Amino acid sequence: MEGALTRAAAARDADLADLFEELRIPSISTLPERREDCLRNARWLQARFDRIGFTTELVQPIAEGLPVVAGEWNGRPGKPHLTIYGHYDVQPTDPLGEWETPPFEPAIRDGRIYARGCADNKGNHMATLKAVEHLFAAGGPPVNLRFLIEGEEEIVGKSLPRYLRDNGPKLKTDAVLMWDGGFDEEGNPTLATGLRGLLYLELHARGAAVDLHSGLFGGVAPNPINTLARIIGELKDRNGHITIPGLYDQVEPPSAEELADWKKKDERYAQALLQASGAPILEGEPGFLALERTGSRPTLDANGFLGGFVGEGEKTVIPARAFAKVSLRLVPNQDPVAVKAAIEKHIQSLTTPGVEIEVKVLSSAPPVKCRVDNPVADALRAAYSEVFGKDTALIRIGGSIPVSVDFQEAIGAPLLISGIPQADAAAHSPNERLVVDNYLRGIEAVIRFICKLGE
Amino acid sequence: MEGALTRAAAARDADLADLFEELRIPSISTLPERREDCLRNARWLQARFDRIGFTTELVQPIAEGLPVVAGEWNGRPGKPHLTIYGHYDVQPTDPLGEWETPPFEPAIRDGRIYARGCADNKGNHMATLKAVEHLFAAGGPPVNLRFLIEGEEEIVGKSLPRYLRDNGPKLKTDAVLMWDGGFDEEGNPTLATGLRGLLYLELHARGAAVDLHSGLFGGVAPNPINTLARIIGELKDRNGHITIPGLYDQVEPPSAEELADWKKKDERYAQALLQASGAPILEGEPGFLALERTGSRPTLDANGFLGGFVGEGEKTVIPARAFAKVSLRLVPNQDPVAVKAAIEKHIQSLTTPGVEIEVKVLSSAPPVKCRVDNPVADALRAAYSEVFGKDTALIRIGGSIPVSVDFQEAIGAPLLISGIPQADAAAHSPNERLVVDNYLRGIEAVIRFICKLGE
Repeated sequence: MEGALTRAAAARDADLADLFEELRIPSISTLPERREDCLRNARWLQARFDRIGFTTELVQPIAEGLPVVAGEWNGRPGKPHLTIYGHYDVQPTDPLGEWETPPFEPAIRDGRIYARGCADNKGNHMATLKAVEHLFAAGGPPVNLRFLIEGEEEIVGKSLPRYLRDNGPKLKTDAVLMWDGGFDEEGNPTLATGLRGLLYLELHARGAAVDLHSGLFGGVAPNPINTLARIIGELKDRNGHITIPGLYDQVEPPSAEELADWKKKDERYAQALLQASGAPILEGEPGFLALERTGSRPTLDANGFLGGFVGEGEKTVIPARAFAKVSLRLVPNQDPVAVKAAIEKHIQSLTTPGVEIEVKVLSSAPPVKCRVDNPVADALRAAYSEVFGKDTALIRIGGSIPVSVDFQEAIGAPLLISGIPQADAAAHSPNERLVVDNYLRGIEAVIRFICKLGE
Repeated sequence: MEGALTRAAAARDADLADLFEELRIPSISTLPERREDCLRNARWLQARFDRIGFTTELVQPIAEGLPVVAGEWNGRPGKPHLTIYGHYDVQPTDPLGEWETPPFEPAIRDGRIYARGCADNKGNHMATLKAVEHLFAAGGPPVNLRFLIEGEEEIVGKSLPRYLRDNGPKLKTDAVLMWDGGFDEEGNPTLATGLRGLLYLELHARGAAVDLHSGLFGGVAPNPINTLARIIGELKDRNGHITIPGLYDQVEPPSAEELADWKKKDERYAQALLQASGAPILEGEPGFLALERTGSRPTLDANGFLGGFVGEGEKTVIPARAFAKVSLRLVPNQDPVAVKAAIEKHIQSLTTPGVEIEVKVLSSAPPVKCRVDNPVADALRAAYSEVFGKDTALIRIGGSIPVSVDFQEAIGAPLLISGIPQADAAAHSPNERLVVDNYLRGIEAVIRFICKLGE
């Protein structure tokens, strides 16, 4: 380890230059005209892993997809195996006019690298690549390693999920470092303990066979808008507590350690949410922290509603149909299938005479639970502590990272979701930035983490 | 009276021919290219009234509007004054392909006249014109008369309302015969006892300042769709009973006579509504007849709702805004201003933390109450009984006739809302039709009615 750390300390300029080289590739996966740049980025990474000594492959299970850069090294039989996940594709750059320097010409100002992708995810994965490079130069890492760097994270592509599902047993590993996270608002490294799942529904309400006039039919005609409104209105109470019977039965409360940490941060966090949203006040279940409500509690939101006449002026119509989109964020250990059954039953009980409701599932993803009571998590936390002098914050991620579900279901090994960018990285915005020191110390932290795994 | 009736009996062919002449004028008020035809129809009617002996005028208080044909005869000082309302404009004819004979070439088949406007309203007002013509030929009617035949009924124009509002005191009268109704499904002549009013609202809900992502903000962000749905859902109970405090306080129940009549008809009426709507079943307040629910009870319906993402697929958005259109049908003696205040207060009490609701009034029309406990109503009912051998059904009109509010507020005299077309007249549809016998007997009924007023 010391040899690798010494090399890293001596190679800072070169390590930055290498990152800059990747940052100059405009690998925007959502733009067809950037496909060649994405492929170039994949080959660029493959060449780096080849040079280090990995067995590499560009895996492309979907012809029109973008390849996954896969690198494998099994030089330590009998030792643990670690998989490192990242992505080489980046977000688009618009509005381009708001960038202070061009997004694909990386620049350093005030100790920060400015470039599209510097935080999300090139700075992250290059820190792991450089750490491994230094470990090889110093005699080789003490554990077996696999890199899986995909090119479709920003477009939620199916190539890596397909690869994981098709090759689950072959990809056996002891832990997956999902290296796409970052530090919290207080400047602490983080480790996710859970990600929320999603159940996205469409509710279709039908009343009469045709649109009716409220002068003639008001008082006798079923009104699908009123009924759908009634149903959606009843799914949560005034404070946002979901009223579907049994919905909270499987919800696992946060650990004592998480809760203690969240309590300290919650006021600042809630204040930041309030400011970011511009809402008059936040809503939410009484007795729960904002961090619980966005992280460890299931939620329900109507995302769309359309029915009847919505143009200018008046039309006294009782429409024949209305529909709404409603989605739930699920938390460990909720099961989307059971939740769907419970909500469907509840919805049917809430409809009114003459209105038929159809519940369609548009998508469903289970919550992801990341255990942190294991030696791999301990190793990462110890490495962070040694390098950054800070405790690791245990966080919940309110959104979902779709590929984490594939890792969870196809591979099954513990997931460590973490990363090195500071909180204000502006990952999907103009002037994306990464603190230079986070990148350089990140390399050191990964060296220490990998070495601890081999102990 | 006998003289007039004898003349009417002898003039049947001529009276039909005169109606056909008016029916050949395509006076579609909603089509700009038919404006000249509308003006021609107005002049045609004016010439008829001139010839009878009326003092006539084409009143056009709005330059771009269509004129009101006004005819006045005050040859019976000290005797009652009756105003007769009708309209010379007609609905468009599409879909033209569904007409069995051309809409402006009147034809008789199976004892029915087929033509656009034969029922709504040319057959109606020509029956009154012809009745008066026969009364004049037989020595003059026993009461003073005014005709107001407008050209903007089908487009809810402002010309006649403006004229009524501007000339209220000058237009003093003892009764207004709003001669634009028809017979009921059982073949009985009708007299309306009330028309529902309307309060049309738009509800605007605002939460955060910007659209938010439900992964990051689900659990803390106020959601205007959920809140608006909650509010609309709470405005009625499961069966359609409105929950706004005090809403039913001013509602006048139907008279014993109305209720007795409605009870006899309700099952057939409800069956017809069910069939016309194609709904699986009707909804409505338990304990009330369908005829009460559509006629003498206030109702509330959402007419439109829009919020968030309503395209194909998924978007996990918590939108910043949502809006809905909600309208109430009001009944005697509800006051739209008081109802607006009550609903606004109730809505504000139902909103959830962080969501602001604005309630806008798009339009408001009071209910209209037509008293039938007076000699004018008695005279019409007696005339109907003598001519058709049937009792007059007392009905409520679920929709509104906007100009009736102007008559009520500007003139103040009792309103008699009635007419002669049979129930299946298809007034706004292809193959509009009027039973020939209803037209001819209608002339006789109007003669008898006017003579009874002079007794």
